[in-house]
Amino acid sequence: MGKTRLEAFSDGVLAIVITIMVLEMKVPHDASLAGLGPLIPVFLSYVLSFIYVGIYWNNHHHMLHTCSRVTGGILWANLHLLFWLSLFPFATGWMGENHFSGLPTALYGVVLLAAAIAYWILQQTIIASQGPSSKLRIAIGNDWKGKLSPALYTMGIVLSFFSPWIATAVYIVVACLWLIPDRRIERVVQQHDA
Amino acid sequence: MGKTRLEAFSDGVLAIVITIMVLEMKVPHDASLAGLGPLIPVFLSYVLSFIYVGIYWNNHHHMLHTCSRVTGGILWANLHLLFWLSLFPFATGWMGENHFSGLPTALYGVVLLAAAIAYWILQQTIIASQGPSSKLRIAIGNDWKGKLSPALYTMGIVLSFFSPWIATAVYIVVACLWLIPDRRIERVVQQHDA
Amino acid sequence: MGKTRLEAFSDGVLAIVITIMVLEMKVPHDASLAGLGPLIPVFLSYVLSFIYVGIYWNNHHHMLHTCSRVTGGILWANLHLLFWLSLFPFATGWMGENHFSGLPTALYGVVLLAAAIAYWILQQTIIASQGPSSKLRIAIGNDWKGKLSPALYTMGIVLSFFSPWIATAVYIVVACLWLIPDRRIERVVQQHDA
Amino acid sequence: MGKTRLEAFSDGVLAIVITIMVLEMKVPHDASLAGLGPLIPVFLSYVLSFIYVGIYWNNHHHMLHTCSRVTGGILWANLHLLFWLSLFPFATGWMGENHFSGLPTALYGVVLLAAAIAYWILQQTIIASQGPSSKLRIAIGNDWKGKLSPALYTMGIVLSFFSPWIATAVYIVVACLWLIPDRRIERVVQQHDA
Repeated sequence: MGKTRLEAFSDGVLAIVITIMVLEMKVPHDASLAGLGPLIPVFLSYVLSFIYVGIYWNNHHHMLHTCSRVTGGILWANLHLLFWLSLFPFATGWMGENHFSGLPTALYGVVLLAAAIAYWILQQTIIASQGPSSKLRIAIGNDWKGKLSPALYTMGIVLSFFSPWIATAVYIVVACLWLIPDRRIERVVQQHDA
Repeated sequence: MGKTRLEAFSDGVLAIVITIMVLEMKVPHDASLAGLGPLIPVFLSYVLSFIYVGIYWNNHHHMLHTCSRVTGGILWANLHLLFWLSLFPFATGWMGENHFSGLPTALYGVVLLAAAIAYWILQQTIIASQGPSSKLRIAIGNDWKGKLSPALYTMGIVLSFFSPWIATAVYIVVACLWLIPDRRIERVVQQHDA
Repeated sequence: MGKTRLEAFSDGVLAIVITIMVLEMKVPHDASLAGLGPLIPVFLSYVLSFIYVGIYWNNHHHMLHTCSRVTGGILWANLHLLFWLSLFPFATGWMGENHFSGLPTALYGVVLLAAAIAYWILQQTIIASQGPSSKLRIAIGNDWKGKLSPALYTMGIVLSFFSPWIATAVYIVVACLWLIPDRRIERVVQQHDA
Repeated sequence: MGKTRLEAFSDGVLAIVITIMVLEMKVPHDASLAGLGPLIPVFLSYVLSFIYVGIYWNNHHHMLHTCSRVTGGILWANLHLLFWLSLFPFATGWMGENHFSGLPTALYGVVLLAAAIAYWILQQTIIASQGPSSKLRIAIGNDWKGKLSPALYTMGIVLSFFSPWIATAVYIVVACLWLIPDRRIERVVQQHDA
């Protein structure tokens, strides 16, 4: 069974998630700078979430590149990942509208954490389907980013209740870690193709 | 006539349906746990509908895999299925917002039942187009799941007026029945490909 | 220049148009039958528009099947068609919410008429690009449906101000005319392929 | 790494952006002409933005046609462009709802300017990835449109505070400049293909 439709469906969901997040930025009725003011935290949370969805799309792209056979398990692990990513607009809107206050910032971290775990499950499912000489397993290596991120998200969730701004800084640091595309996979794929 | 655009269009509609359902979960203005409280049933109904749309996408994927020629009848049977699936966000939102009360839970069951019938019509249309040695007919076998589900949905609709929670439990049971991907089709396809 | 992205983009826009129309059916806060009542005309207008978008997708599918080369003119004629189709959710919502009263029913007809003209322009642009032995020109033949529909829409627009229900009946009649897929094109394509 | 998913994802985001802009045109509760009146500027701003997104899709289409290899840098430059395009519905809605008053018209220009810069960055990233004999570099030639547009947008932003209507006229002029598809690229591609 091919992976074309899996990619097409995932691209569709991610494209919609990334675009409807902007609908949380309600058009103000007021045409003055004062009208835009309350939207600044909503805008900042939108930027952060846009980058996160971009990272997920990017890494998803690289990960599926190593994958030639799609099993039922992979289909469902992928849907599970999309489920958590579909909650980004809600978590982003709540955090932005409440100006990065405690509970919403913690919930944002919970959604980030759940998506990271779902991504890890999908990764393991693909590795298992590829057998002992799994291209993806070689590509991710020791996967330090994948192991560090959940720990940092958890730290962010706890910190939210003390200082939401430091928690947000932690989420930004994790995003920066991942902004660099997964060159490990690119390298291994090129070696295998060569 | 190829099936590429039929798949692309269906993937698009399903991706949007699954994603806009989350818009029914309105961002609360309140940043406290009390603000999140009323959203819990909305969230639970979202989870259930997400799984249902996932099942439909999954089975649709398998079903079209057996299909090489797309007729006008298949195009319209497919649009008919998409119509009922497009009502999921409405039915889900109404059920969630009213905390699984009687009438909304019954309506949810009606939409599930209509989608199941539309799926069955699409299945029969594809089988008819494939002639006597239809791959899909062999693949679905006695189709006990396809026959049992409408009966269970009907039971759920009736039960909604007495105990919406039992009705919801019935809908969950049907979802679990289908969560297992249609291995019958996978098996037959592999045999034919071999 | 290939037509793959043109089809993908059109499929995307049509899939979104057909799905966001359902958002005009606002989830009622009331869990009773009385709460559903005012939604019945909105639902009926949704059904009609769903069928229309389905017809457009279907015929667009058939029309592009005859087209191998995409010019700048075709790209823009296609965007022009998508523009009018993107107004369906607005026109549908206004007509449904106002229970098929005069002006909204007329505006719905104006959008139908404009989409029909845009479709005709796209058709002529493709025919012109195909030169004297245009496959599409042969396929559409005398194109009686394409010529009759704008006349009927115009009749519907005028009738809206006297009896919106008769106007709506006219729109339904046109939809029924088109529900039969464009077998002319299918036939010619098969002959050419044979 | 292929460009199929990059194109599919971009098409998805652009299709959603172009379609959800129409959601800013809220269905009026009033069924009279008086109810439609306030929507006219919203409609006009929608038309302008629809044309702009159409132009971006069109040129993006042509630009990626010259591109066979997608690097990490191209992926992110493309996401950066999509980010600014995703702000079109917000900027369009604010400008339309406030009847093209000063600040919203200036913000619209800022989003146009940012998208133009993001497009230019993507263009340079692709050229850099193609090496000294870059097809795209030859295709765009002296790129006078790409150089003139940011200057005109800047002029429009400044003019917004004096006469928003002249500013809007400037935005319309730039759109007209671009409405002509990038024949330069078409020509070079044809020469290279020949």
